[in-house]
Amino acid sequence: MKAVGLVAEYNPFHNGHRYHLQQAKKLTGADVVVAVMSGNFVQRGVPAIVDKWHRAHEALTNGVDLVIELPVFYAVQPAHLFAAGALRLLAGLGVQDVVFGAEHPEWNFQEMVQAERQFRSANFHHYNATFATQFNQELVKQTGHQLVDPNDILAFAYQKAKVDQGLSVHLWPIKRQGNDYHDRQVEGSIASATAIRQAVADGRVPSAAMPAASAADLAMVRAVPSWQQLYPLLRNQLIQAPVEQLATTYEVAEGLEYRMKDAAERHLDFDSFQRAVKSKRYTYARLLRAEFYLLLQATVDQVERQMSRPYYHVLGFTVAGQQYLHQVKKQLPYPLIVKVDQRLKDGLLNLDYRTGKIYQTFTNDEQDLKRPPLCG
Amino acid sequence: MKAVGLVAEYNPFHNGHRYHLQQAKKLTGADVVVAVMSGNFVQRGVPAIVDKWHRAHEALTNGVDLVIELPVFYAVQPAHLFAAGALRLLAGLGVQDVVFGAEHPEWNFQEMVQAERQFRSANFHHYNATFATQFNQELVKQTGHQLVDPNDILAFAYQKAKVDQGLSVHLWPIKRQGNDYHDRQVEGSIASATAIRQAVADGRVPSAAMPAASAADLAMVRAVPSWQQLYPLLRNQLIQAPVEQLATTYEVAEGLEYRMKDAAERHLDFDSFQRAVKSKRYTYARLLRAEFYLLLQATVDQVERQMSRPYYHVLGFTVAGQQYLHQVKKQLPYPLIVKVDQRLKDGLLNLDYRTGKIYQTFTNDEQDLKRPPLCG
Repeated sequence: MKAVGLVAEYNPFHNGHRYHLQQAKKLTGADVVVAVMSGNFVQRGVPAIVDKWHRAHEALTNGVDLVIELPVFYAVQPAHLFAAGALRLLAGLGVQDVVFGAEHPEWNFQEMVQAERQFRSANFHHYNATFATQFNQELVKQTGHQLVDPNDILAFAYQKAKVDQGLSVHLWPIKRQGNDYHDRQVEGSIASATAIRQAVADGRVPSAAMPAASAADLAMVRAVPSWQQLYPLLRNQLIQAPVEQLATTYEVAEGLEYRMKDAAERHLDFDSFQRAVKSKRYTYARLLRAEFYLLLQATVDQVERQMSRPYYHVLGFTVAGQQYLHQVKKQLPYPLIVKVDQRLKDGLLNLDYRTGKIYQTFTNDEQDLKRPPLCG
Repeated sequence: MKAVGLVAEYNPFHNGHRYHLQQAKKLTGADVVVAVMSGNFVQRGVPAIVDKWHRAHEALTNGVDLVIELPVFYAVQPAHLFAAGALRLLAGLGVQDVVFGAEHPEWNFQEMVQAERQFRSANFHHYNATFATQFNQELVKQTGHQLVDPNDILAFAYQKAKVDQGLSVHLWPIKRQGNDYHDRQVEGSIASATAIRQAVADGRVPSAAMPAASAADLAMVRAVPSWQQLYPLLRNQLIQAPVEQLATTYEVAEGLEYRMKDAAERHLDFDSFQRAVKSKRYTYARLLRAEFYLLLQATVDQVERQMSRPYYHVLGFTVAGQQYLHQVKKQLPYPLIVKVDQRLKDGLLNLDYRTGKIYQTFTNDEQDLKRPPLCG
């Protein structure tokens, strides 16, 4: 059996995702579709609109054969770490092809990666806004293009991860369909996930833009999970923990611990807190990720140690997906987990487990312990 | 000017409190009444029904001349530490008499303290339930009485604190008026604070049982502050912090950290969490205090260090109270604080400040920073 790999958030799964996976299968001639999917928090550091099990179910009933959770220490990360983690897992699963959307699939991302390597070695050590801006200036000179669109940035990151990890997997950037990522309106049968989430927040489920399973899940959402609801937890952590401890949190340092503590003491709602913390130095996504790790009280040490110890947590499979898993499971480079027991929740999967406990702010369902994979 | 000292929670201030302070003045011939009052959390580890400023206002408009906040590290404590802290502050304020309610004011509490000292040196090191039971058995033999009523236990604790601290202050246990502490019904013009709080929780303000200021404050209470509302904060702390860190929290140890973490993972509401944690070893009040210090992330070191560094935080005074303060302020053994500035909130008053931030779960009002004393 031949598998094609996808990296997804499915937040929620919509018609664009279905089109994408059909294209992926056609292009690569794969028998099965394997998706590595963010769990209960997505890359930007925000809670998913429905939990990972519902989103896995949406995917399984619409063409995905095997859904593996992208562990939180890979999922809630900047693009380059997100892409590197996802590609590492897909390659380990024996996937030969990975298909992903890009705004400019025609670009030579490999050339860009080489340009970036030369630029990086000559210049900066950190991947921050200043770096991105200066790198783009250099990139325009060398290739005529700039990395601005989030999907192009991810496409670049997959290419870079492939080179860095020395993988033989084939990368297929394909043109994204339908509305722009940032479009807020839902029109027709293809809409962005952002637009769909906004519609749900406004009290409508735009059923035409998604399969029935997704529409059914969204119809159950009473309030869209948001940071507003999590803010009391974040605020108390920022106020009560000493700054020295806050500074050991993953993604919190360089004075952010003081800035955030001060803002938490002054602000009782999340939006005004965020405005007080925001500076040119950090994007909102960067802040949200730092805030997520504060909620999780996850230290730099814990997260970095886990990044070198990934695993395959199976959220669900079809019959074909299960067969594929059976075919590859003896060669997997990392542990295969089909059910989280007491030992795993306190050990290897602890960060995902604790993320699920935070997600219980929105839904009472236990997210990990003793849950078997879904059968699609 | 001669002052009489009271130790109070005023949760809320009611007719029984007014009667008590009038008696105290009459008995001792004092010119002014000085009350040391719990802040936003009371001795049992629960949030007060209205904040400390409102309760200080109720007291000032009903006969108290000077309200000093009992710092949280003295207030949220078992009876012996609560009484010792309050008496230490009152004695330092130059108060010659302290009047307090007791169920059995006729008992010889001094004799009981001596009996306890002999018993303690012969037996136990810790003040736990087993100790109390065995001590009571011994006490009956020696004095014919048992310490069961909470006010008798406090009366004993004041006597013990006086002896331990070598104070010359005169202690006046007086008979409590009206309904029993545990009575839940409000009848007539004297009712217990417990009964009043229950009535407010049921949507009624029993105005006949309290002065107008208290009735006005209670009329503004939309939801009685409770641990149900704080539980998400406690739960996240218990889940996210490592057990080793939880075990450094004041009043959390001896395995309670494991028991609480496990219960927090399993239970989404506070009542079922409490039932899961409860054992014969700990009373509910003991658990609530431990849970309060968990919310505050206050370590044994922090709390114990602060217990040896108290201060006088003035919540309010009448003209007479201000005159009295002026008279004694040069001899105060601990710092006098009339307004909390940036330095104090991060330093000496940090635990009270952080307690106020937790209390903002119930009311948006800033509780400490830059608030001047009330003028009654």
